[in-house]
Amino acid sequence: MRPHVLIIGCGFGGLEAARALRTADVDITLVDKTNHHLFQPLLYQVATAGLSAPSIAAPIRHLFRGQRNVTTLMGEIVAIDANARTATLKDGATLRWDHLIVAAGATHSYFGRDDWAEHAPGLKTLSDAFEIRRRVLLAFEAAEREDDPVQRAALLQFVVVGGGPTGVELAGTFAEIARHTLPGEFRRIDPRQARVLLVEGSPRVLQAMPERLSERAREQLGALGVDVRLNARVTGIDAEGLDITTAAGPERLHSRCVVWAAGVAASPLGRALADATGCTLDRAGRVVVEPDLSVKGQANIQVIGDLAAAQSHAPGQPPKPVPGVSPGAKQMGRHAAANIQRRLRGEATQAFRYRDYGNLATIGRHSAVVDLGTPAGPLRFSGLPAWLFWLFAHVYFLIGFRNRFVVLVDWAWAYWTHDRNARVVAGAGLSEASPARDAQA
Amino acid sequence: MRPHVLIIGCGFGGLEAARALRTADVDITLVDKTNHHLFQPLLYQVATAGLSAPSIAAPIRHLFRGQRNVTTLMGEIVAIDANARTATLKDGATLRWDHLIVAAGATHSYFGRDDWAEHAPGLKTLSDAFEIRRRVLLAFEAAEREDDPVQRAALLQFVVVGGGPTGVELAGTFAEIARHTLPGEFRRIDPRQARVLLVEGSPRVLQAMPERLSERAREQLGALGVDVRLNARVTGIDAEGLDITTAAGPERLHSRCVVWAAGVAASPLGRALADATGCTLDRAGRVVVEPDLSVKGQANIQVIGDLAAAQSHAPGQPPKPVPGVSPGAKQMGRHAAANIQRRLRGEATQAFRYRDYGNLATIGRHSAVVDLGTPAGPLRFSGLPAWLFWLFAHVYFLIGFRNRFVVLVDWAWAYWTHDRNARVVAGAGLSEASPARDAQA
Repeated sequence: MRPHVLIIGCGFGGLEAARALRTADVDITLVDKTNHHLFQPLLYQVATAGLSAPSIAAPIRHLFRGQRNVTTLMGEIVAIDANARTATLKDGATLRWDHLIVAAGATHSYFGRDDWAEHAPGLKTLSDAFEIRRRVLLAFEAAEREDDPVQRAALLQFVVVGGGPTGVELAGTFAEIARHTLPGEFRRIDPRQARVLLVEGSPRVLQAMPERLSERAREQLGALGVDVRLNARVTGIDAEGLDITTAAGPERLHSRCVVWAAGVAASPLGRALADATGCTLDRAGRVVVEPDLSVKGQANIQVIGDLAAAQSHAPGQPPKPVPGVSPGAKQMGRHAAANIQRRLRGEATQAFRYRDYGNLATIGRHSAVVDLGTPAGPLRFSGLPAWLFWLFAHVYFLIGFRNRFVVLVDWAWAYWTHDRNARVVAGAGLSEASPARDAQA
Repeated sequence: MRPHVLIIGCGFGGLEAARALRTADVDITLVDKTNHHLFQPLLYQVATAGLSAPSIAAPIRHLFRGQRNVTTLMGEIVAIDANARTATLKDGATLRWDHLIVAAGATHSYFGRDDWAEHAPGLKTLSDAFEIRRRVLLAFEAAEREDDPVQRAALLQFVVVGGGPTGVELAGTFAEIARHTLPGEFRRIDPRQARVLLVEGSPRVLQAMPERLSERAREQLGALGVDVRLNARVTGIDAEGLDITTAAGPERLHSRCVVWAAGVAASPLGRALADATGCTLDRAGRVVVEPDLSVKGQANIQVIGDLAAAQSHAPGQPPKPVPGVSPGAKQMGRHAAANIQRRLRGEATQAFRYRDYGNLATIGRHSAVVDLGTPAGPLRFSGLPAWLFWLFAHVYFLIGFRNRFVVLVDWAWAYWTHDRNARVVAGAGLSEASPARDAQA
């Protein structure tokens, strides 16, 4: 019988690992909670009604249709037994494995304030994206029906918490929707009166970027109409808005649409793995892995992607933490697959080395920042050239030819018309509890 | 102050009525429960993962962006006061009107067996379509994890109740998915073993069609692999399947995915209108209207579309019921708008006359039936030519240029590859309670 490789999670890490084992003499089972691989870097476009869900999501089993050594199963792994070499699904079914790759990713963290979740959804899954889309679009609908100017202003104030790449993208796109997409479609409100705030706890946005590019991003956000609040700590979130504290003191922000892009926590499977193997978790719940990505004392278990607290080991340099970005997850996926093949050949595994090709973030139409490492030194640029670079890089990396083409069509259309193609909310979701009075007034 | 026209519902009828009042000297308020106009004839494509929701749905306020006399409001009208000339929204807000067009459409009817609804969703809204998509795709996922052959067969048996156009489209497309889209993607089941049943109470499918075309449709369904059960009465539906009675006696059909395409009931707003005006409702809850589409004794209230039990009045011919199809709703919408303009000019209203340009229904790839009225007599054809005719007619009538183009791209792709582009289910929805055992076996 061929060795059996179990891969948990089909994000960028799990997908690459399974692909890299294409020609290996192993049987692979790939388990994911959903039926699709998600192109996460464009998820904010689904949340902001620019793209439809199928444009950025591909059925996992379709991606592996031609790779005969892969069996795809939809389900959630809840426990791992390192001695028996099994994994247990939520319904109690078990899967045996000889080699295990855990790529279960991350989820939101509200820093212990889980009661904030219902008032400030995060953005990790398609369901999250639909919920944010619903809240943003229906806030404008409710404002059109609202006569009280104070309530109306609260409905037209949008707050994004967290100034990382996702927060910056969301805030920039919300501002674009208010300024360019919706004007002319309402009769009682002016969507341009909407305010978008970006609340960030540290002194700058996009902390992974060089300071100069953070400053450029802040300027571009300002030009799009986003009010950026730096050094601002969130102290409370409820159905009516949020409380922040800045150097100027406490402040109340009234809003019916708050989005959480601040905290990331490792998948609960990290805890399950620690229970099973005694491995160490870091503060964010990530599994601290060995240089070769394996779990301490468990040569047959590797952890990759956002669930791994991994180090990059370049010859002659001190180890450096691997950043939580998709190229990191993909490289770890390929590395884990290669390590399994080395072990099957009786060779020693190798330490993981992260190759950093740079960093890029988009802010809105014509706005982005790019930081590339080149042999001649760092190449940094922003504005329109950075935006074009970002656009083509993302379309290029999108899964599947057809998606790429449809996404390009959608974007070309959106570019010329300022329109957004997915402004559709399923169901009658408008809260009828809002104090709209005689809507005919 | 200009006369105020209130239009309730933005399906085909309400949309056409508002458009036809483009140049009229009136203020129009258009109220809909959702934020989008839905191109209902292609909703089955969303349910069967062929199209994404935004491809067939357009934001209502975007459609009326340029028509300045229209105010769009999202909300649900729950009561009408004919004397005070107001309509009440769910949250208690009221809208005044001088002329009222009620175009609230229809919903599913389970013939008094509302407990069947949870086991057999119908197809009227985008939410319905997502629910059917989820059930169909996840049935195959659960079957791949199922070891028990009896349970597996139940998971791979799909039942559509009702042989009208929607039922025929759904059954034909389910069969295509099983035979052409999914094979090769599973390792433990063969999707071609899936069975699709179409259960119809009468002796033929597509009853609105001439008998010969009904027979053609049945043949084409058979060729696609659909098992058509005619003269079959449904006596019970539960979580495990349904009970039917045919000439051969009672029969139990095991299925985890039953779709309801059998009964249509008028919107509950018909009842509200009857309470307000004393008008008559027919057995399906539709409002019996006067020849000019107005409500008896209420010249300022017109009812159109699926909510109206209307007659066509052709000169020299006895009145004929207007069929519940989209051309009927559109024509009624334009007629109601014209009647309002006649009244504003002090003229008499006119009786409605339905112009029947024919009838068409699709069954699946290369399969459709068409029945056209031409000056030279009826023109009837089926198979590939009918399918091409259906395809271009539907793409032509789709709302908005961009949608048409993207839908054509999606279809061209689906045509060549047998792939379906929207096979995405948001969230982890697979029932973990199914008795899958050691899924590794």
